[in-house]
Amino acid sequence: MTTEVRRPPEITAEEFGRRRSAVWAGAEAAGLRALAVFYPARIAYLTGFHHVPTERPLVLVLGPEAKTVLVVPAVEKEHAESVPGVDRVEVYFEYPGERHPLERLAEVLRSLAGPGSVGADHDGVVPYWGYRGPRLSELLGAPVVDGEMLIETLRRKKSAAEQECIQVSCEWAARGHRRMQEAIRPGETELECYAPAELETLREVIRSLPGWRPRSFGGNGVTAMFVGGRKTAYPHGFVRGHGLQPGDVLVSGASADMDGYHSELERTMFVGEPNAAQGDAFAKMLALQTRAIEVLRSGLPMADVDWEVAGLARELGCADRLRHHVGHSIGLEGHEAPFLDRGEEAVLEPGMVLTIEPGLYFPELGGFRHSDTVCITDLGHRVMTDYPRELEALVIPV
Amino acid sequence: MTTEVRRPPEITAEEFGRRRSAVWAGAEAAGLRALAVFYPARIAYLTGFHHVPTERPLVLVLGPEAKTVLVVPAVEKEHAESVPGVDRVEVYFEYPGERHPLERLAEVLRSLAGPGSVGADHDGVVPYWGYRGPRLSELLGAPVVDGEMLIETLRRKKSAAEQECIQVSCEWAARGHRRMQEAIRPGETELECYAPAELETLREVIRSLPGWRPRSFGGNGVTAMFVGGRKTAYPHGFVRGHGLQPGDVLVSGASADMDGYHSELERTMFVGEPNAAQGDAFAKMLALQTRAIEVLRSGLPMADVDWEVAGLARELGCADRLRHHVGHSIGLEGHEAPFLDRGEEAVLEPGMVLTIEPGLYFPELGGFRHSDTVCITDLGHRVMTDYPRELEALVIPV
Repeated sequence: MTTEVRRPPEITAEEFGRRRSAVWAGAEAAGLRALAVFYPARIAYLTGFHHVPTERPLVLVLGPEAKTVLVVPAVEKEHAESVPGVDRVEVYFEYPGERHPLERLAEVLRSLAGPGSVGADHDGVVPYWGYRGPRLSELLGAPVVDGEMLIETLRRKKSAAEQECIQVSCEWAARGHRRMQEAIRPGETELECYAPAELETLREVIRSLPGWRPRSFGGNGVTAMFVGGRKTAYPHGFVRGHGLQPGDVLVSGASADMDGYHSELERTMFVGEPNAAQGDAFAKMLALQTRAIEVLRSGLPMADVDWEVAGLARELGCADRLRHHVGHSIGLEGHEAPFLDRGEEAVLEPGMVLTIEPGLYFPELGGFRHSDTVCITDLGHRVMTDYPRELEALVIPV
Repeated sequence: MTTEVRRPPEITAEEFGRRRSAVWAGAEAAGLRALAVFYPARIAYLTGFHHVPTERPLVLVLGPEAKTVLVVPAVEKEHAESVPGVDRVEVYFEYPGERHPLERLAEVLRSLAGPGSVGADHDGVVPYWGYRGPRLSELLGAPVVDGEMLIETLRRKKSAAEQECIQVSCEWAARGHRRMQEAIRPGETELECYAPAELETLREVIRSLPGWRPRSFGGNGVTAMFVGGRKTAYPHGFVRGHGLQPGDVLVSGASADMDGYHSELERTMFVGEPNAAQGDAFAKMLALQTRAIEVLRSGLPMADVDWEVAGLARELGCADRLRHHVGHSIGLEGHEAPFLDRGEEAVLEPGMVLTIEPGLYFPELGGFRHSDTVCITDLGHRVMTDYPRELEALVIPV
């Protein structure tokens, strides 16, 4: 990638409008007169309104002609009013408040005239922090139709603009990972190694993409970190803060937020040359990931990818070291459905963007996992994360 | 605070055991034979098991004699097995998996013999990322008793160890905020100003508290950031990335994770001297915060604090610029119930830890909010965040 200054990729107001129209068409076909959307990432998907989730309910309502009402607490009033695709903003002051905020939502839903029933992606607010409240069905005194899949079906296939956001995210992930890898020094803690490199990449993003800003709350929008040592044997290990030692296995993760879209780049690295057992574990993991990538094509049941990897792991004698499926979808959220999992019923389709990350975990050796972000195309697939996968490129000199 | 090396504060295994016994005593009194806990912060509260929430369900079950079963995906197997207070770990491979993970939970709940019913803090998994699943009551074919308050009641009053974690968090927040404030330079973006200072504070934490590690996922466990300019008029504004200008209002936030506990320190600052309107808004905000702190005492209805501030705001002619209540509880989560809110039914009790942060928001001027963390004591209250609140101390030289 070039370092020239360019516009950060983004989703246009027109695209948000098309998404709402498509969801509303499905809702109408299902006989709904309104669809309430509670889950924050779905509200962002349909409007571009990204907010900091708190205990305060925030609900998007889609109604006839795909008109939208956003029910928000006063903390989000001006922010909500600035969003192009929102036709009406209904503000309640606060949670818990003298009146439960969902009472306001019930009024909005009742005001949408016409026969038919109400759908929702969840039967009430998804509780967070100190929130408590009734189910929407209790409040309305009528069952609520499960409308989650009206939105989720759409989210599974990424549009050209979404793919562009994820592609640019991959490019910055690779750039951040390169800088982070070069900054690793034995004796220092993980945080001491990666945090300055992460910060420098963040600075470069700010300089290169004027107007860029992270949409996801928490962190600064650019990640390039790793976990070291035995702790890597826990697939979701936390950073320990001990000094790195020769012989340590490192498992990394890098990403960048592009208009709310994410990617995933992870590598298994070694502090100095790995021992024979570590080298063997690495080679097996690499074989599993290579196989998983090779088989990807439109029309293939996603479960088959997981079974393929499990079968190869059995052949290689390491099936008992698997601790998770092959991968997940990725986009506005770090993990999304559908999954490359033996229990998944979906089939691969062009436009799906997935992580490919079979891992092997040994308590005495550490964890071994690469993750690449891959897009399913008409012709097969395209690996979006451009970073070496071979052992020689992933040894930190000591 | 001293810079000497000391042990990071932590919650002992004994304390986790006492918490479980207390919750189980309440569950038994309510006639329950098992209590399922789905919400991640509650699982951490009862066991010290902090995990990265994903689409994979993770459920703690409390049963007779406060015995515990943790139902986990394989990614958390070894991690869960390392937790002292967990009597049994039940591992399912993956979500979605060939069988829905909640089937395993249903088996565990059925295996707990004896009469009585099942309680839960939520009727099934709190959905996150790509998760979908049945309600627990559907799965069991019987109503589930709402057991959320059995745990939440306990969380409201912080123990001595919890207060110590939060106090140390406050001290590092103040230290990080001081360094961050000194690093602010007009012309640079917010991130360019605060990120290096934040990193330096993180390094100092690592050096000063051997064995310290963040428990909360996302970020590095130490925060010292701010939002600048008009965007501060949105109470939950995102960082914009534009260069700071003389005349900008800044609203900051600093915290540090101490064994999973948080604190909150926020200040309104100015790039150069504020204009008359800004100075007036600041003075009113400061008066509101001062009043809110002054009235805090055990036995006072929490709603009264919010009404007191609202009343003073009316007297000062700025009630229409309020956008949220006075504050919230804080501990393992950034916001917790109960709230300093006009709709709150709880009464202040010794041991409660709260943020005090009435704010005023003007589209044309910016946002004005300080937040301090305060503990309710037998005698009144103790402000835990030691940082200047006066205007003169909060002007960045230009």
